[in-house]
Amino acid sequence: MRPWEANIRRVVPYVPGDQPKGSRLIKLNTNENPYPPAPGVAKALREMDPEAFRKYPDPSSSCLVEALAARYGVDKERIFVGVGSDDVIGMAFLTFFNSEKPVLFPDISYSFYPVWADLFGIPHKTPALDGEFKIRPEDYYQENGGVVFPNPNAPTGIFMPLNQVEDILRHNRDVVVIVDEAYIDFGGTSALPLTEKYENLLVVQTFSKSRAMAGMRIGFAVGHPDLIRALSDVKYSYNSYTMNLPSQILGAEAVKDQVYFQEITSRIIATRERAKERLGALGFTFPDSMTNFLFVTHERASARELFAALKREQIYVRYFDQPRLDNSLRITIGTDGEMEALYAFLENYLKTV
Amino acid sequence: MRPWEANIRRVVPYVPGDQPKGSRLIKLNTNENPYPPAPGVAKALREMDPEAFRKYPDPSSSCLVEALAARYGVDKERIFVGVGSDDVIGMAFLTFFNSEKPVLFPDISYSFYPVWADLFGIPHKTPALDGEFKIRPEDYYQENGGVVFPNPNAPTGIFMPLNQVEDILRHNRDVVVIVDEAYIDFGGTSALPLTEKYENLLVVQTFSKSRAMAGMRIGFAVGHPDLIRALSDVKYSYNSYTMNLPSQILGAEAVKDQVYFQEITSRIIATRERAKERLGALGFTFPDSMTNFLFVTHERASARELFAALKREQIYVRYFDQPRLDNSLRITIGTDGEMEALYAFLENYLKTV
Repeated sequence: MRPWEANIRRVVPYVPGDQPKGSRLIKLNTNENPYPPAPGVAKALREMDPEAFRKYPDPSSSCLVEALAARYGVDKERIFVGVGSDDVIGMAFLTFFNSEKPVLFPDISYSFYPVWADLFGIPHKTPALDGEFKIRPEDYYQENGGVVFPNPNAPTGIFMPLNQVEDILRHNRDVVVIVDEAYIDFGGTSALPLTEKYENLLVVQTFSKSRAMAGMRIGFAVGHPDLIRALSDVKYSYNSYTMNLPSQILGAEAVKDQVYFQEITSRIIATRERAKERLGALGFTFPDSMTNFLFVTHERASARELFAALKREQIYVRYFDQPRLDNSLRITIGTDGEMEALYAFLENYLKTV
Repeated sequence: MRPWEANIRRVVPYVPGDQPKGSRLIKLNTNENPYPPAPGVAKALREMDPEAFRKYPDPSSSCLVEALAARYGVDKERIFVGVGSDDVIGMAFLTFFNSEKPVLFPDISYSFYPVWADLFGIPHKTPALDGEFKIRPEDYYQENGGVVFPNPNAPTGIFMPLNQVEDILRHNRDVVVIVDEAYIDFGGTSALPLTEKYENLLVVQTFSKSRAMAGMRIGFAVGHPDLIRALSDVKYSYNSYTMNLPSQILGAEAVKDQVYFQEITSRIIATRERAKERLGALGFTFPDSMTNFLFVTHERASARELFAALKREQIYVRYFDQPRLDNSLRITIGTDGEMEALYAFLENYLKTV
């Protein structure tokens, strides 16, 4: 090792899902929305003035924050925006989890949580999901330095009813509790109204899934103004201008079109419900998903082999090579056409195993 | 204090310069480029497909990295890109400055350095600039956990000759040295070629000044592939997808147009040189700037009062309320028209003091 390497922070980085390129492929591996963003986004893009790029963007992203405040009926002071929900949650780890006590999150959940904890040197404990892949609220009664969990959870897709979320909150009045609602719009009920009752609750959502804007990197958090202020102070101490001008303008447009949002979300939910029937009929089992993906296991087919076979056909799904998950596949809900192509392949494939 | 507030990280955030709005105002306060981005940027914006926003962006920002590699004649493995040079340098602090020994940077320089050091708990020492506001290389011979300085420095505008930069490098073989070249394109000579000779050197530049793209948030670093890999690992551990699709596409277009870049840069330099004459004739003194701003003091006029008087006229410049800087103003070089309006105001104003 060269001497200047001694002070380098060594981390095991998160490995994002493949971003394969090509027009023939069917991409069901990163839970993107199969539909384009709201028409207002395309219109605002066409009208954007490139001369405006020479100036710094509004550091407070006012137009986007105001659109979110109007949409969710909360004060602007209760909203924080970031470069994807990863930026929001990473910043929240850095801001709120300064404790000697371990932060708690499920052993099976978003794979970025342990990565952030390691990056910032945050002690953590990961209570195991139960046999049905469900979070046990009582596991979060123990002493801790903070709590974070996705609801619905990933990659299981399971939604925890709000009374259980509130049970966890009631037992954790003295730490910050983060509920990561990346997939909430596909049938779950948001804990957002609970932020009025629990000052220590931060609810995080993203534009990457239900709003079809993964490429723009927009996430946001809702919580008590004191939480938002602390988060903003840390954010301004890292980078004052994180969200670029197109994200602010186009993000605001996406939020404003509630009709289109309902339409594509309902369509994805309908496709998912059909997928449950079709995949069930093919012998797959899965937890009852409230997200835009299904986490499936087959009674006979090995997940690893099926993953490889799908990839050869240019159908990309997600495989997690880790205990308890390694015989399952996470399949994003695509368009009906994409899903039909998947069923057709599976029908033939399953005849051979 | 409520119990859940105990674990919150408390920071004194960086305060960015005002972003006043209005069409009549003259904005010379945040060192933006007075000219629009390269014409290719506007063209690529018009051609951008909003449907592509539904997918995650390329996490490695290949098209932008490739454009930079071609422009600077270096391997792709030697380039790191981030959301503005603030993101790049903040990430570099987190990655490279893991030492018990203090990191060194000048007492007067970019005001974000102490903010990042505080945020990440990095010990630091700030050698004083000399009486002429110059960095003394010998101050950086002492034992340290890393070195960072802007060249040219801000808000002084002074460029340190490359032999002095190399002198600092020769005395610091065992730590990472970051040279922050936000303003290098306005007449300085980049240390970029020194990255071949010094494996521990990281050179950082930005699209916010000379490339007229502050609104897009793009910065980059060049250095040894081992430095870049360590930086990327930390970046992927924080947020895999930081740079959105428009920044990648439009950033690449900006880099490709070297002719336009030379044209607007030369124009700004010419305006700056005229500003030196005109402001000198009005009784202002200033270090010899190699940037797109001048750091001026007047023999009779108080900087604080002049700042307020300019603001009343909707001419915005930057005032730093801190020791050694509080009788100076940092004035961004605008268009010739904007500068003439400034001179006209100053001529009248100075008759009254």
